[in-house]
Amino acid sequence: MKEVIYKINNRTLKIGIIGLGYVGIPLASEFLENGFKVLGFDTDEEKINSLKKGISYISHISSDFLREHMNVNFDVSKDISMIKNVDVIILCLPTPLDKKNNPNMEFVFGTIKSISPFLVKNQTIILESTTYPGTTSEEIYPMIRKLGFNVGKDFFLVYSPEREDPGNKDFKTSEIPKIVSGHTSNCLKVGTSIYEKIVNEIVEVSSTQTAELTKLLENIHRAVNIGLVNEMKIISAGLGIDIYEVIDAASTKPFGFTPYYPGPGIGGHCIPIDPFYLTWKAKQKGIETQFIELAGFINNQMPLRVVEEALNLLKKNNLNQNKSKILILGLAYKKDVDDMRESPSIRIMEELERFVLKVDYSDPFIPNMPKTRRYKRPKQSIEVIKDNLREYDLVIIATDHSEFNYSLIKESSSMILDTRGVYRSIDANNIFRA
Amino acid sequence: MKEVIYKINNRTLKIGIIGLGYVGIPLASEFLENGFKVLGFDTDEEKINSLKKGISYISHISSDFLREHMNVNFDVSKDISMIKNVDVIILCLPTPLDKKNNPNMEFVFGTIKSISPFLVKNQTIILESTTYPGTTSEEIYPMIRKLGFNVGKDFFLVYSPEREDPGNKDFKTSEIPKIVSGHTSNCLKVGTSIYEKIVNEIVEVSSTQTAELTKLLENIHRAVNIGLVNEMKIISAGLGIDIYEVIDAASTKPFGFTPYYPGPGIGGHCIPIDPFYLTWKAKQKGIETQFIELAGFINNQMPLRVVEEALNLLKKNNLNQNKSKILILGLAYKKDVDDMRESPSIRIMEELERFVLKVDYSDPFIPNMPKTRRYKRPKQSIEVIKDNLREYDLVIIATDHSEFNYSLIKESSSMILDTRGVYRSIDANNIFRA
Repeated sequence: MKEVIYKINNRTLKIGIIGLGYVGIPLASEFLENGFKVLGFDTDEEKINSLKKGISYISHISSDFLREHMNVNFDVSKDISMIKNVDVIILCLPTPLDKKNNPNMEFVFGTIKSISPFLVKNQTIILESTTYPGTTSEEIYPMIRKLGFNVGKDFFLVYSPEREDPGNKDFKTSEIPKIVSGHTSNCLKVGTSIYEKIVNEIVEVSSTQTAELTKLLENIHRAVNIGLVNEMKIISAGLGIDIYEVIDAASTKPFGFTPYYPGPGIGGHCIPIDPFYLTWKAKQKGIETQFIELAGFINNQMPLRVVEEALNLLKKNNLNQNKSKILILGLAYKKDVDDMRESPSIRIMEELERFVLKVDYSDPFIPNMPKTRRYKRPKQSIEVIKDNLREYDLVIIATDHSEFNYSLIKESSSMILDTRGVYRSIDANNIFRA
Repeated sequence: MKEVIYKINNRTLKIGIIGLGYVGIPLASEFLENGFKVLGFDTDEEKINSLKKGISYISHISSDFLREHMNVNFDVSKDISMIKNVDVIILCLPTPLDKKNNPNMEFVFGTIKSISPFLVKNQTIILESTTYPGTTSEEIYPMIRKLGFNVGKDFFLVYSPEREDPGNKDFKTSEIPKIVSGHTSNCLKVGTSIYEKIVNEIVEVSSTQTAELTKLLENIHRAVNIGLVNEMKIISAGLGIDIYEVIDAASTKPFGFTPYYPGPGIGGHCIPIDPFYLTWKAKQKGIETQFIELAGFINNQMPLRVVEEALNLLKKNNLNQNKSKILILGLAYKKDVDDMRESPSIRIMEELERFVLKVDYSDPFIPNMPKTRRYKRPKQSIEVIKDNLREYDLVIIATDHSEFNYSLIKESSSMILDTRGVYRSIDANNIFRA
């Protein structure tokens, strides 16, 4: 362990990062900025080629930064055997759900299997992916031990959950306190020694299970609070009360209240998915997770309520559904990001297409909509200009990107369905809420 | 209206406050401090006598303050006919639930009926009680109109929910922004003119329904977040993870997370009750309030879990249940208050008495436990000293009052069941968690 810590302290430690997405790239950049050598791995050839050319695909990491470091102290590769040349292996891999809403751990466990032949003594494996309590100690630890390593002595196992918040410009990776846990106390020491070189504040917890549950609690808290405010929106609408006015008024209470806002549903890689990792684990112990399931139920029905409201609006205005054209503003799952994973906009689009003539979208962050597993028909973003807006019978504001020209949209659209409260204080007879 | 506002501005307006409890007394004191004359009403003879003698029963209002003002610009009375002599009538009355968990509005509506013969032109009625959306416009307004008043012209109707947080020393009534709404725009103007004399910040909302729902949202948000963390405690315990360590670690996230702590259940006059006012109203419209009901379900079962854990502990330690003595520390529903309304401690006591020989309590704020509707056997608080603590087989920490000597309790109790995490970082073999 002393040797490892010595290498960390004089920055001769080589960092390997597997998974070069919205977690891996910012993490790599922190290590690079702090004088470490980083070797990045990804199975996605496009990402590797883009990085090699010095073209960034993560909004807050500049291409200039990549070009400055590429082939100096940063290199990327698809060749996983190179893992034998690094000291620390940080896994920043997706942990999605399978079709039954159970954890799909194939990326994490599959990667560990594929790097197993190339692991050497005194290496450290760190998992950053969000996962259920017990993943590190009950699943990964036995895999490492089987290879003949003595974890805590000649190999180190760390769990330290990523806390990235895409689109949040207030906090860089280095400014977000880092939860660190180790399989043994030596593992914890190694983990802390590494992260304290790149993050201002380390929060050590007593076990990997605690760290795993900490990350889940953060996202469950968010999923439940969004679920609650979505249900409150439904109730509020039923009572003829403006939910945004209520939330804004409640927010003036100087203690005991934190505002969350309703919307057309939830998306992204975290909030719709992570909570069910705990559901799965709790079920194994015969414990229920009722808040998670209720939040999932409410949040999941929100896109369908938007569709219902849209079709109602067409009907009320005597428009022929089959001939109607609808424009969805915002494909990304949240404001000012380019991420459309699990985005409610996709579901709204998909559903609406069953009823109306044409559904288009506009999103400045997503000029081309790629095919996805769910959605097979690629489209191009429509420009938000007067003539285009006039083409549609209904414009749905699904994502409240700052870039949209909301006054132009208000002036030029025949009807607007606002699911984000962007027109909350505006009374106009072409604006409706869902 | 001009006359009313003129009177407000030169402080010749007389304020009548009906209901002299934890809301009415602090409100009266703000008006008194700002040079208004206040006439207080209550049906409780004990309160009237106590106030006349200048003895305060509200912890943060001093008896000195009362004596200074009594018979100068403050008077109290049981005689409701005196209401004809005031300009503003502020109702600070309880809004509890009936046996079926439906709103019990008899205090509010009954009071309005009883003051009706004494109402005169140009008076203002303000309701401060928490209630369901529609109370002011659908129930109180028709009562006033029937009396022949023209609301908004020669009578004013205001809803402005109290936001008192008993035990919170950080905020005086004047420092908490005040939500104000009126049945008409003139009513709103009158309401704002009155409250801006005593509160630093007024938040006007567009309707009484909006103000009613705002207060409910604040308390629903709290009830649901406590329910969530109580469920997380159950899950966490099942996985062998310390929930307090998890919450403390999650709290280091600088955005998107607000810590709530688990406990033996919820109490007080607000959190267990108010949310169901919305449930009742929503049901009338055929709308469900699933988060409220789930939070109620989880929070309600917490006291029973403490009882179960207590009995398990006795069994595990081979103690004869029927001969066991248990001491409950804290009768109040929360830290550092003297309020035992809806307190989970009472329910824990009541349940435990069915199984064990003796259950006593200690609470520095409640030297004598009065008879309540639920609990018929009055008791006296036991002093927390070594010899007393040794008398009991089990000590349950139900309320984490600051005054308790926790190191003495740890040293002198044979077993402790900690429901508040006061010993969260202490490892001792006589301390257990529930």
